[in-house]
Amino acid sequence: MNFESDIIRLKNSIDTELNNIYDSGPNIIREPIYHILSGGKRIRPILCLITSLALSGNIKSSLDAAVAIELLHNFTLIHDDIMDNDELRHGNVTIHKKWDESIAILSGDAMLAIALVKLGKIDNKYQSIVNNKFNKALIEVCEGQALDLEFQNKDIVSKEDYLSMIDKKTAYMIGLSSEIGAVLANADKSVQNKLRYYGMSIGRAFQIQDDLLEVISDKDKMGKTLKSDFLLNKKTYLNIQAQLVDSNKVNEYINIAQEKFDVGFNLYKKFLEDNNIINNTKKVIDDTLMLADSILDDINMDKEYLYKYTQLILKRKS
Amino acid sequence: MNFESDIIRLKNSIDTELNNIYDSGPNIIREPIYHILSGGKRIRPILCLITSLALSGNIKSSLDAAVAIELLHNFTLIHDDIMDNDELRHGNVTIHKKWDESIAILSGDAMLAIALVKLGKIDNKYQSIVNNKFNKALIEVCEGQALDLEFQNKDIVSKEDYLSMIDKKTAYMIGLSSEIGAVLANADKSVQNKLRYYGMSIGRAFQIQDDLLEVISDKDKMGKTLKSDFLLNKKTYLNIQAQLVDSNKVNEYINIAQEKFDVGFNLYKKFLEDNNIINNTKKVIDDTLMLADSILDDINMDKEYLYKYTQLILKRKS
Repeated sequence: MNFESDIIRLKNSIDTELNNIYDSGPNIIREPIYHILSGGKRIRPILCLITSLALSGNIKSSLDAAVAIELLHNFTLIHDDIMDNDELRHGNVTIHKKWDESIAILSGDAMLAIALVKLGKIDNKYQSIVNNKFNKALIEVCEGQALDLEFQNKDIVSKEDYLSMIDKKTAYMIGLSSEIGAVLANADKSVQNKLRYYGMSIGRAFQIQDDLLEVISDKDKMGKTLKSDFLLNKKTYLNIQAQLVDSNKVNEYINIAQEKFDVGFNLYKKFLEDNNIINNTKKVIDDTLMLADSILDDINMDKEYLYKYTQLILKRKS
Repeated sequence: MNFESDIIRLKNSIDTELNNIYDSGPNIIREPIYHILSGGKRIRPILCLITSLALSGNIKSSLDAAVAIELLHNFTLIHDDIMDNDELRHGNVTIHKKWDESIAILSGDAMLAIALVKLGKIDNKYQSIVNNKFNKALIEVCEGQALDLEFQNKDIVSKEDYLSMIDKKTAYMIGLSSEIGAVLANADKSVQNKLRYYGMSIGRAFQIQDDLLEVISDKDKMGKTLKSDFLLNKKTYLNIQAQLVDSNKVNEYINIAQEKFDVGFNLYKKFLEDNNIINNTKKVIDDTLMLADSILDDINMDKEYLYKYTQLILKRKS
């Protein structure tokens, strides 16, 4: 057993499924569906599979659910990209830019339908419980995106409200991934719950890290998204802290950036550094991931790959 | 037992459920969801319920599924209205016009999520079979809408291709309504299938009648939709016949209508009459509904309300 090569092997199993996921149906939606599925790191389905394996489950039983979760995730990406008017996704042009908004709306809808069909293929014994959890996650992710839209029209958002939003929008679905891995490995309910909390903690750290990477990573990598997010005053873990320190200053930097993006954005970045917001955020990410690992402490399972997976997430650069 | 009052009673049961369907969650999606749910004739859920009753099933067992189908239908309406850029729905302003496109996309997504949660409340015994049928219908309706979009860029669409499109986009979900009514009344498989064909035939007639009403009904009622559909060269049962007779003429009328809508549209209408397309279409609607009723012939059930329901659909004026 070798972690890196096993992760690649699991990713390949998932990709093999995704490469043949929708071979019938009209071109007008089939092509965009394969377009977006060609990218992505498969973080959620891999987490589902390694959770199952850690609990002595097998890949065969959990692969359909893992693939369904990845499809659910891609459904949200397609629609979110329209709402946020993003131009790039996984380094490729977004569907609504490459085709148009109607095609993007419909491809997203079909992607969700395909996810549900895939979910219908899991063992009958687990159908009802997994469906209920999946549907709950779908509502949560819609509500998270709704709060995200609401927050764009607010100057000040509290840290609690922000965390509640990202828990719904991002963390819940990552929690679903590990939870369903546990369900399909026939783990008992308390283990299922703990693994949901583990996944949710990873998801929360993941989103805060996303917020941080937007500011400190190589701009060319994340350029387009960063620019529109900053100019839209989109709430991030760093933005809400900055707004709490001095909301006038942040708005001033955004105004400057409307004219000269680099000037305004560099002023904002310096402001984040001067007020210790960047270091603070790094610490929160570390703490949240440590919390995630600690949730695993009293579960009787083979935890090695989950610990390594946490580290893998922590070390990502884009 | 009185048909009219029983239909009103069933509609009230459905509306009572819908009036409390989503009382938590962010305002930004809750308000649009209740906005669109305030209108509509509940054709699909009522069909589900009377099918169940005709097979000695009871409302209690089928109400959750009936409501889920109405929610699924409303999900498609919200997204289709964005794609078709329609301004009115059930006589009210569409969500993307009253709010914006992002809110409409997200409200539609949440509506589907709520439908799935509602579906999860039906008797465990039927969960798996009903879920599979529901998910299949969801794919069909997405593919129907995809074909509808594809056809807008074609001059000539054959009658077969058109019927296949409306079967997916409209008829399949009406077929699902009667089929699930049968499933939940514990009918055997051949009866379930016949009732799906019955519903699909009604659905096909319903869509062709929609196409006809757009041309012959009081313009004020359907004005906005009609105008954009005609100018977009949107395929209808009448349009595809007209295009087959003389595609140059039809395109000429559309061009005239771009400048002076009434002039171009009246020329088109006269063309439909002169070529017997309107009478022909009326006959097809009658024949399709007669076919629907004939499918019921050899099912051992109380058919009175289903026959009356067919007639109710036939006589609608808007």
